[in-house]
Amino acid sequence: MKNIKTAIAQKNFTVGDLKSNFEIIVNSIENAKNNGAEIIVFPELSLSGYFPKDLLLNNKFISDNEKYMKMIADKTNSIVALVGFVSRNGNDIYNSVAVIQNRKIVKIINKNNLTYTEKRYFSEGKSSEIISVKIDNYTYNVGVDFTNNFEIDDKNSEKYGEGKANFLFLFGNSAYSFNKLEKRRDAIVEKAKKIKTPIIYTNIVGGQDDLIYDGNSFAVDKNGNPIAICDGNKENMKFFKIAESDVLSSFEPIDKMEELFKSLVLGIRDYFVKTGFKEAILGLSGGIDSALVAVLVSEAIGSENVYSYSMPSNFSTDHSITDAENLAKNLGINYKEIPIKDSYDNLLSTLDSEFSGTKFGIAEENLQARIRGIILMSIANKFNRLVLATGNKTEVFLGYFTLYGDSNGALAPISDLNKILVYSLSNHINKRTSREIIPQNIIDKKPSAELKDEQYDPFDYEKIAPLVDEIIDNNLTKNELLKMNYDEKMIDEVMNLIQKSEYKRHQLVTGLKVSDAMVHKNRKMPIINRF
Amino acid sequence: MKNIKTAIAQKNFTVGDLKSNFEIIVNSIENAKNNGAEIIVFPELSLSGYFPKDLLLNNKFISDNEKYMKMIADKTNSIVALVGFVSRNGNDIYNSVAVIQNRKIVKIINKNNLTYTEKRYFSEGKSSEIISVKIDNYTYNVGVDFTNNFEIDDKNSEKYGEGKANFLFLFGNSAYSFNKLEKRRDAIVEKAKKIKTPIIYTNIVGGQDDLIYDGNSFAVDKNGNPIAICDGNKENMKFFKIAESDVLSSFEPIDKMEELFKSLVLGIRDYFVKTGFKEAILGLSGGIDSALVAVLVSEAIGSENVYSYSMPSNFSTDHSITDAENLAKNLGINYKEIPIKDSYDNLLSTLDSEFSGTKFGIAEENLQARIRGIILMSIANKFNRLVLATGNKTEVFLGYFTLYGDSNGALAPISDLNKILVYSLSNHINKRTSREIIPQNIIDKKPSAELKDEQYDPFDYEKIAPLVDEIIDNNLTKNELLKMNYDEKMIDEVMNLIQKSEYKRHQLVTGLKVSDAMVHKNRKMPIINRF
Repeated sequence: MKNIKTAIAQKNFTVGDLKSNFEIIVNSIENAKNNGAEIIVFPELSLSGYFPKDLLLNNKFISDNEKYMKMIADKTNSIVALVGFVSRNGNDIYNSVAVIQNRKIVKIINKNNLTYTEKRYFSEGKSSEIISVKIDNYTYNVGVDFTNNFEIDDKNSEKYGEGKANFLFLFGNSAYSFNKLEKRRDAIVEKAKKIKTPIIYTNIVGGQDDLIYDGNSFAVDKNGNPIAICDGNKENMKFFKIAESDVLSSFEPIDKMEELFKSLVLGIRDYFVKTGFKEAILGLSGGIDSALVAVLVSEAIGSENVYSYSMPSNFSTDHSITDAENLAKNLGINYKEIPIKDSYDNLLSTLDSEFSGTKFGIAEENLQARIRGIILMSIANKFNRLVLATGNKTEVFLGYFTLYGDSNGALAPISDLNKILVYSLSNHINKRTSREIIPQNIIDKKPSAELKDEQYDPFDYEKIAPLVDEIIDNNLTKNELLKMNYDEKMIDEVMNLIQKSEYKRHQLVTGLKVSDAMVHKNRKMPIINRF
Repeated sequence: MKNIKTAIAQKNFTVGDLKSNFEIIVNSIENAKNNGAEIIVFPELSLSGYFPKDLLLNNKFISDNEKYMKMIADKTNSIVALVGFVSRNGNDIYNSVAVIQNRKIVKIINKNNLTYTEKRYFSEGKSSEIISVKIDNYTYNVGVDFTNNFEIDDKNSEKYGEGKANFLFLFGNSAYSFNKLEKRRDAIVEKAKKIKTPIIYTNIVGGQDDLIYDGNSFAVDKNGNPIAICDGNKENMKFFKIAESDVLSSFEPIDKMEELFKSLVLGIRDYFVKTGFKEAILGLSGGIDSALVAVLVSEAIGSENVYSYSMPSNFSTDHSITDAENLAKNLGINYKEIPIKDSYDNLLSTLDSEFSGTKFGIAEENLQARIRGIILMSIANKFNRLVLATGNKTEVFLGYFTLYGDSNGALAPISDLNKILVYSLSNHINKRTSREIIPQNIIDKKPSAELKDEQYDPFDYEKIAPLVDEIIDNNLTKNELLKMNYDEKMIDEVMNLIQKSEYKRHQLVTGLKVSDAMVHKNRKMPIINRF
């Protein structure tokens, strides 16, 4: 086999923005040609952006996407291009890859083995065909297949494995999760070895609502050795030769904390860029959660675009304010103190006809959180900024937050990180910059909502955070948890809190997915549920 | 064929409450036996409640449901019972009907042709079998099948049609929508005629989160003539004879407005009853939407349990307060006036360091709505009441509401009624009681949010409400809408407003489904979307 020069175009596309996506594609093809590439591959559904969801029910969207695909073909010669788009046949649409050569679409491969989500839109195709591609009078047998979660259908791989194809282009965009990067590598390395065929895996890069596509595309030879590795969490065009490539020494070990940091930053940045917002606003309680979000958003959109507020109430401690102030100083973000004592007293007197004679309780606690929520939303509305909610996953599932209060916002960057991961990432941030970005006192002090005197979070997070994860991510039952030596009283309490707060999560803002399994938006628990 | 005495048990089950559902089932069987019934049929998934969603991923839930099923069988003799439950075979679970006779489950029929939603949980079965049931030495051939949306698989019906079965039990719970009742009747009448077989269709009754199951079970003979009709929107046990039944004269015409009223009342009532709340609270703006919700919730849970508040601001007109007061008086609900002027001024001065020098705008408008939202939530938290949001479908999709303001609440009873339907139902309510429950001035006046001076809703609802429905329910494109003679500028404006407010609906409270097609919870539009 002649040595074929290949380009992986790991690009950041925007859902629905066909014109920009089209431009990215033709520019990348031009760039690849200029670099002598003979074949270029783009990720799954590059032209539409990923994943278009109910846009796929829009006829005009589908036909516009077809028009742009033709325009891409018109502009593509002297190179073979594989481009993901939506193809149509009568009333059926498919998740497809077009193979373009000499200004023509010479083949369209449609995905089979559709996922649950895809079946809402697409019809089953027949992926895993071998296509013949002629470059410089040399004909290559090229396998094309799609993967769901890195499972590759054995029936498919029989068709292109064992040398039947010279190499395989594998499609299947994969959203970031904390443990997924290693799994991806391992699965594809194993598969290449098993089918004795080089695999070029492409993944899209960029944030889309709750999902972060981290890129990290790569290619391995038929022995599973890496021959091309794209960077994570950014656009990257990699050129390499498939047949006689120099084998890279090996995959580098994955720094999971650093990847988490970069992926969250990408997810936040793209949420702003792609929705057209420039400035962020958030409350700094002096606690760890809001501190972490402040760091992430500063990195994502620039500290000059971040507006932070300390909003002390009657129950706030002095260190809350100084910790918040120090953090803001360290980050160089805008910072202001807006005390809520007056507004709180005023609203309580407005409510006096209802509240007089009752004892201080949850209503008064929530009232403080809601005043803060109002203040942030008011400033956001006034200056067209975007509010960030700062809750973590453990709180979210225990229902330990105030609806229309601290849950206010357009994006919740860390709502899928459990409390332990929040601490680990915070420590990592101070370590990676070799200075105390997050004041140590914020990391060391006892977590508190400070909504009444001497109030501390009523949870032992070391124990309760993993327990919540077992219930939510792994769907474990009480009996299974008892066998893992969780305390029965704690199990009952946690299960009860999760169930009681279901209606709150039904109204929750979009959060960035980080867990392996379900995040709150994937969870489909009934609100009315007496089990 | 001997004349077999049959009972339809159209009952109100609660998702997850296996013990209560079990009791309802055994009591109904006892009752049917006492009334001489020889066979009794319960709706699809009666034992689990409908629809259990992710509870179906819980092993303990499945095994508990199996245990209760055995207990039902143990108690069932001298009558044949068909009971919907979740059956299991290894790792697969099925949407099943158990046929019980002589204290034994003699047959389990598993649904085939699963819907998109069901495939998340269930494996495909093989419904539409004919089972032999022996009663009094007479053997009946009984068809059992499931339907999705009243489409009945022709392949299935070949098996039991044309006299191969003496009669058919048809399962398939169907949630209420405004136009569905007639469609159901027509579809089943046509099917019975076509396959020349009597059909007994059972539908569950009761509210479950956003869905209202309205019952309206019925049976037709092989000529499509009704032989049993259950009441709508309540529990109903109907006894009838299949073979030589007296044909009822005919189906009564459907009063769609009255059915809408009753279904909404059922949906609200069950949300309270099944989540364990007793009291409701809502703001009365003096407008039509909150007036309608007040009427519905009074009917659902009793006017003594409804707490209503007029919360005038600087921009409220006098008639807003008197109209709200008159409505409350007509309904006999609790009513109080809590002016928000003070709190508004106070919060503005708290925000002064940010707002000084800026012009009155959307931030100040929203602030008023959010103060009202805070007041309602505070009172609800204090007295364990449930807040109702009062937005209508047209507003919801135009984004014409304040997040964390008037959208606050645990349930939005009319968020799937467009503005025209809101008026029609309000007029119907005054007509059905033959007195002015909703003050005529509320119906007649120009809609206004009253968040600034001389503000009126900037929409011609007569034109814009149907346009929104065409876009949302029927997914029409601009070209299709132009052909229907909608104004181009209006189409562009509406499409833009819908897209811009997507993130708001992602955080929206559960509403009761009334439309034929998607409600906001079924809609899966990306937030990041540049199409």
